[in-house]
Amino acid sequence: MQKMFCWILLLLSVVQTNAQSDFTNQIRTYREKQSHVLLQEYVSFLAIPNLAADTINMQKNAAYIQNMMAKRGIQNIQLLFPTSPKIPPAVYGEVLVPNATKTIIFYAHYDGQPVDSTKWSKGLHPFKPTLLNGSLEKNATIINWPNEFEQINPEWRIYGRGASDDKAGVMAILTAYQALIANGHHPAFNFKFFFEGEEEAGSDHLHEILEKYAPLLQSDLWVICDGPVHQTGKKILVFGARGDAHVELTVYGSKRPLHSGHYGNWAPNPALLLAKLLSSMKSDEGKVLVKGFYDDVKPLTEREKKAVAAIPSPDQQMKTELGFISEEMPGKSLAESILLPTLNINGMQSANVGKLSSNIIPTIAIASLDLRLVPGNDYKKQQEKLIQHVKSQGYYVITKEPTDQERAEHPKIAKMVLSDGYNAQRTSMELPIAQNLIQAIQSTTNDQIVLMPSMGGSLPLYVFEKYLKATTITVPIANHDNNQHAENENIRLQNLWNGIETFAAIMMMK
Amino acid sequence: MQKMFCWILLLLSVVQTNAQSDFTNQIRTYREKQSHVLLQEYVSFLAIPNLAADTINMQKNAAYIQNMMAKRGIQNIQLLFPTSPKIPPAVYGEVLVPNATKTIIFYAHYDGQPVDSTKWSKGLHPFKPTLLNGSLEKNATIINWPNEFEQINPEWRIYGRGASDDKAGVMAILTAYQALIANGHHPAFNFKFFFEGEEEAGSDHLHEILEKYAPLLQSDLWVICDGPVHQTGKKILVFGARGDAHVELTVYGSKRPLHSGHYGNWAPNPALLLAKLLSSMKSDEGKVLVKGFYDDVKPLTEREKKAVAAIPSPDQQMKTELGFISEEMPGKSLAESILLPTLNINGMQSANVGKLSSNIIPTIAIASLDLRLVPGNDYKKQQEKLIQHVKSQGYYVITKEPTDQERAEHPKIAKMVLSDGYNAQRTSMELPIAQNLIQAIQSTTNDQIVLMPSMGGSLPLYVFEKYLKATTITVPIANHDNNQHAENENIRLQNLWNGIETFAAIMMMK
Repeated sequence: MQKMFCWILLLLSVVQTNAQSDFTNQIRTYREKQSHVLLQEYVSFLAIPNLAADTINMQKNAAYIQNMMAKRGIQNIQLLFPTSPKIPPAVYGEVLVPNATKTIIFYAHYDGQPVDSTKWSKGLHPFKPTLLNGSLEKNATIINWPNEFEQINPEWRIYGRGASDDKAGVMAILTAYQALIANGHHPAFNFKFFFEGEEEAGSDHLHEILEKYAPLLQSDLWVICDGPVHQTGKKILVFGARGDAHVELTVYGSKRPLHSGHYGNWAPNPALLLAKLLSSMKSDEGKVLVKGFYDDVKPLTEREKKAVAAIPSPDQQMKTELGFISEEMPGKSLAESILLPTLNINGMQSANVGKLSSNIIPTIAIASLDLRLVPGNDYKKQQEKLIQHVKSQGYYVITKEPTDQERAEHPKIAKMVLSDGYNAQRTSMELPIAQNLIQAIQSTTNDQIVLMPSMGGSLPLYVFEKYLKATTITVPIANHDNNQHAENENIRLQNLWNGIETFAAIMMMK
Repeated sequence: MQKMFCWILLLLSVVQTNAQSDFTNQIRTYREKQSHVLLQEYVSFLAIPNLAADTINMQKNAAYIQNMMAKRGIQNIQLLFPTSPKIPPAVYGEVLVPNATKTIIFYAHYDGQPVDSTKWSKGLHPFKPTLLNGSLEKNATIINWPNEFEQINPEWRIYGRGASDDKAGVMAILTAYQALIANGHHPAFNFKFFFEGEEEAGSDHLHEILEKYAPLLQSDLWVICDGPVHQTGKKILVFGARGDAHVELTVYGSKRPLHSGHYGNWAPNPALLLAKLLSSMKSDEGKVLVKGFYDDVKPLTEREKKAVAAIPSPDQQMKTELGFISEEMPGKSLAESILLPTLNINGMQSANVGKLSSNIIPTIAIASLDLRLVPGNDYKKQQEKLIQHVKSQGYYVITKEPTDQERAEHPKIAKMVLSDGYNAQRTSMELPIAQNLIQAIQSTTNDQIVLMPSMGGSLPLYVFEKYLKATTITVPIANHDNNQHAENENIRLQNLWNGIETFAAIMMMK
């Protein structure tokens, strides 16, 4: 009986292996042989600090990528600068195939989110990549980098800024091409590689680069590598991204900090004012109460609705993993929530807490607000709705520090500094090239891949559409629990390895 | 005509000078001669960091005070330690007068509030005392310390932690005694000096010292020097202080920071939860909505009400100076507000704002809350009311980090860490010794002195009552705009000089 059971298991596993293409197996074998070299190359890449504002280190990052390209035989390598040479350039390279009729551009970004290294866990540092034998949340510990004779466990994780967001994209794309060539394959497309250096700083100059280099950047499809795969671990294709814009909101109390005993509850407390103002923006059911906030939203097509319905629900798994039981909008699923425009508090601060706290009434209170947008929204319009909301709460709204005159005239004053932003974008799932892409990625895995009309996160996809009339589809590879944008960012090695197979399959698609 | 006007002015000024006692003038003349030496002594004192937790520097402060006492011929100088020798001791000294029937103890504290030196203005540092030619808020600039031939302008200010709160008390009291003796006066009282080293850390061990040294610390009156004079600049006597207790409130979201795009408005945002929770604690009219918050308040006596009615209103002046026009409780005067129990937000924090802000949903949000108490309130009862309020808002309240089990069972979780605290205290204005004190201080100034039933700030006065059955009256000397407890703390020299005259008069009272 037991023997028979084993036979069935073996049979099943053979069937499963066959479901993945031989091509994918070949890429995997190659990658396994190269693992130690790839790991070393990746860790040196992560060790270069990558804040967009850090010009010198961004130059080093760009040079490192140019070198990675050159080693792989990629041609016409160059830095694409916007108008100002101080802005991190995009790193460009290409492979032109004789008689190819179509061109795919692969996109990733090599800059990372701002870091607060004091918040990283003990032994970790944003720019000292560290290897752990699993996930920190599951009590993994720091381990030594493997020597060439040690097996690399795919559950190990590298911790460091950019490990998943989005140097992993650069690494997976370039290594997919390397594996393809090493195995003697001949793609049917021209490839172009475009690695941005300013994405986490808002891609403020991306449009300048696209405009300036428009002839070089013509293509049939931009494949964007950014963000995480589905929380179930399944591969995912994303046909759009939410737009994003920010508002930094500051409310004012006394001009100087006051003793909370001598003046408490007489002088206005900006922390309380901010708390009340933020509270006014959302109902207890998580609905944004800013007037007209959900207007302008373009509804999903039937095809998109069907795709959303087929998305496996990670909600319960995620709640257990993340340690909470109630959604911000009670009863709304994660998949539904991220198809809506939203308002998030990214951070909030007024004076100090904990040991640094003292008996004062703070002078100001600040909230960093994040507006996510869906197709139909215009980011400037959403910001304007928020301004109108703050005004409706009795605030005099300014964009600079209040003058004495303004303080003497207005009981409640708010400074609202608007960031640049960008709108959402969505590509139709029904385009032939989209169908081919779906099929290529499906060939790399036994699991049903997930198709999402929009990711929750944001990418400046509208810029590609606007300046190049380009079609974009996003192919994320990072583990969902990668702590993207926060402390302890990490990549699970298996996700990096899977990413290489995914991009190799795309490069060989019909 | 002009000449006649000048004569009238001169006459008026003579009348004014005469209204102050000859004794006060004598003290002033002495102090003027000593100004350079006193300034030097004070600046060296301020240069010693004085956080209660900084044991080594607190030892240096205590040694410095012992030396100041010894130079002035004060006797029986010693350090009074509580049970643990790691806690900063009180510095004690005494002057026993033959045939004296009464004893006054003078109290001040030499420790200061926590510092965040990054918040101090350019050129200033909490422990590098700096001289300015006026108030920073009025665009004063840093000037050199005067040499012995330069006149010292009484409008100059020293900036540094403890400059006003409360090393100024130590300095003024000891120098008053010095001036008395130098001018050959013979007080009718025994004097004792008691300088605490743990007041800003909550005076947690004061009661141990009072109990241990009870026989040494017997007296007819404790004169407490702490806090600012009235905002009009008039001298003030305060017959009580509010009590104080703290609660550190933390609310929880996901266990790890989440990307605000991928999870925004699905995962609960603790910054929003905290904003809503804090909002629920106060009405838009500044009334604390915590159930029973204003119960237990002991009403003022007729004498106290009369004193409150006579307090000059600084409200309009203060609002102009501080740059706001509406009170937290609209229409309530400052004098009225500080006779109520209150709830203040001292600080609030969730992730980061400004340049450090990133696109995340924070994991926690923290508020440091400050409860001020009036006679009748019990601090533990007030803290308990706040806990009940948080529970009434649907929170599961804990005192430690939530476990996975707790996270899986409760939709809203709040950690509330209660500080030790103390109750309010109030001495009757009608005691004969209180009347004599009022008269003594009135003799130093032409202005009508201000009598306040309670100061807004807190002092652990109940401890003196409880452990020594002592009578306390508070005599503040600092300028009201001293930035006590915050960055840029400062003392206006005229206030230090006036303080010396005040304490000299008290030492010679009937």
